[in-house]
Amino acid sequence: MSGAGKLYGVGTGPGDPELLTLKAVRALGEADVLAWFAKAGGTGNGRAIVEGLLRPGMAELPLHYPVTVEIDKEHDDYKSRITAFYDASAEAVAEHLAAGRTVAILSEGDPLFYGSYMHLHVRLAHRFPTEVVPGITAMSGCWSLSGLPIVQGDDVLSVLPGTMAEAELSRRLGDTQAAVIMKVGRNLPKIRRALAAAGRLGEAIYVERGTTPAGRSVRLAEKPDDAAPYFSLVLVPGWSGRP
Amino acid sequence: MSGAGKLYGVGTGPGDPELLTLKAVRALGEADVLAWFAKAGGTGNGRAIVEGLLRPGMAELPLHYPVTVEIDKEHDDYKSRITAFYDASAEAVAEHLAAGRTVAILSEGDPLFYGSYMHLHVRLAHRFPTEVVPGITAMSGCWSLSGLPIVQGDDVLSVLPGTMAEAELSRRLGDTQAAVIMKVGRNLPKIRRALAAAGRLGEAIYVERGTTPAGRSVRLAEKPDDAAPYFSLVLVPGWSGRP
Ligand SMILES: C[S@@+](CC[C@H](N)C(=O)[O-])C[C@H]1O[C@@H](n2cnc3c(N)ncnc32)[C@H](O)[C@@H]1O
Ligand SMILES: C[S@@+](CC[C@H](N)C(=O)[O-])C[C@H]1O[C@@H](n2cnc3c(N)ncnc32)[C@H](O)[C@@H]1O
Repeated sequence: MSGAGKLYGVGTGPGDPELLTLKAVRALGEADVLAWFAKAGGTGNGRAIVEGLLRPGMAELPLHYPVTVEIDKEHDDYKSRITAFYDASAEAVAEHLAAGRTVAILSEGDPLFYGSYMHLHVRLAHRFPTEVVPGITAMSGCWSLSGLPIVQGDDVLSVLPGTMAEAELSRRLGDTQAAVIMKVGRNLPKIRRALAAAGRLGEAIYVERGTTPAGRSVRLAEKPDDAAPYFSLVLVPGWSGRP
Repeated sequence: MSGAGKLYGVGTGPGDPELLTLKAVRALGEADVLAWFAKAGGTGNGRAIVEGLLRPGMAELPLHYPVTVEIDKEHDDYKSRITAFYDASAEAVAEHLAAGRTVAILSEGDPLFYGSYMHLHVRLAHRFPTEVVPGITAMSGCWSLSGLPIVQGDDVLSVLPGTMAEAELSRRLGDTQAAVIMKVGRNLPKIRRALAAAGRLGEAIYVERGTTPAGRSVRLAEKPDDAAPYFSLVLVPGWSGRP
């Protein structure tokens, strides 16, 4: 579309504002409108990360999820509400783009790696000039913070959502050199059992709110409780052939 | 060690200097000595990426591999030479650190994700103050460049070295929603066969030198030849339940 603004999908990294790339900072500087996802009434994690990098008075387009994204995923009502939400969000962004305004949509971590941004990307990238600015993933931030070499040489890395069934999780943990388990939260008791069943519990490192001031990293076997926030993951390192 | 300098493992990202993080730029600014790995006689990819960000006259410590790292990996001679090389490299870095100088060791992409830096990290991090600065991985750079949503929701992502045996590669490609195949180079004909056997060739995207001016991304099925440089990878997207 000629005269249209540009769409940036901007990865903010996992929490530390210093983990934004130079390109992300430039995209935020070019943007007329800053769009971000958040729970109803909230401001969202991505928005909090870039707080210190915004121009005063920059226009903002909050995109508030209609429902909690963690429940009832298979229910038809949920699916139609969330689809309608992404459709309406894409149209709100499209209006700005069509009017010639550049829009940056924030995405915590990397935009195309389990991020909500991709729902708008598939609705908009064929209609408007679009550039995705990669971000430091939560897993990179967490293994760097922990100083944990994750994979080397011929190692396989499996990235596993903690939402999957316990038997499937433990089968996959037994069939990989290294693993990252995302979306821990209330799945932690199940994840702990699956790691134990696969004989990998002793190596597992638990990290919550990695790269933020509240961040902490501890051997999972030494974490006494099974309480975990949404922003937590588990790392199982490979590199068993370490010289 | 009191009075010792600080060790930074600095991820440079996959090629575009704008993909360095603000933290990486700060670490380079603080470093007294810049260390980097390269083939004998070469300057290395990480070093080329940060070229424009260095202070004139900054001290440099090139670490030249004694042997080509792509052949004869299981041979005892190879193993002892490469181990001796990492030992000597770590000691060269340790001398600077012990003398109170801050050293930044460059790592292309992310330092702890298939990077040579980790060989020095395990030899030095318990002896000196150390901080790992995560980098944009090659895979993030490549899926962002291609505008390819890689994983969503409950998708599993398998990161597979192209060096693995064909049957094992195709088994794993048949047991995952999304995959990234690293270390393509001369493994491309095998990778193509393994993708076809797993029924995933049609979805696969080939990316070489992603995020550099020479970068290109093409459907693997449409790439006519099987020539591929070392800096190439293959992406197989998940997210089949796309709404
Ligand atoms: C919807 S995914 C988003 C992933 C993100 N786009 C990325 O590139 O890593 C959310 C999950 O990422 C992980 N996560 C995100 N930020 C984190 C942090 N600062 N520390 C630990 N885990 C984090 C948690 O497992 C969380 O459940
Ligand atoms: C030793 S691994 C290093 C990985 C790096 N530490 C990272 O974080 O992605 C080298 C492999 O990374 C991939 N790679 C690195 N840079 C790339 C680029 N610019 N484009 C495509 N693939 C790249 C290739 O598969 C290459 O064989």
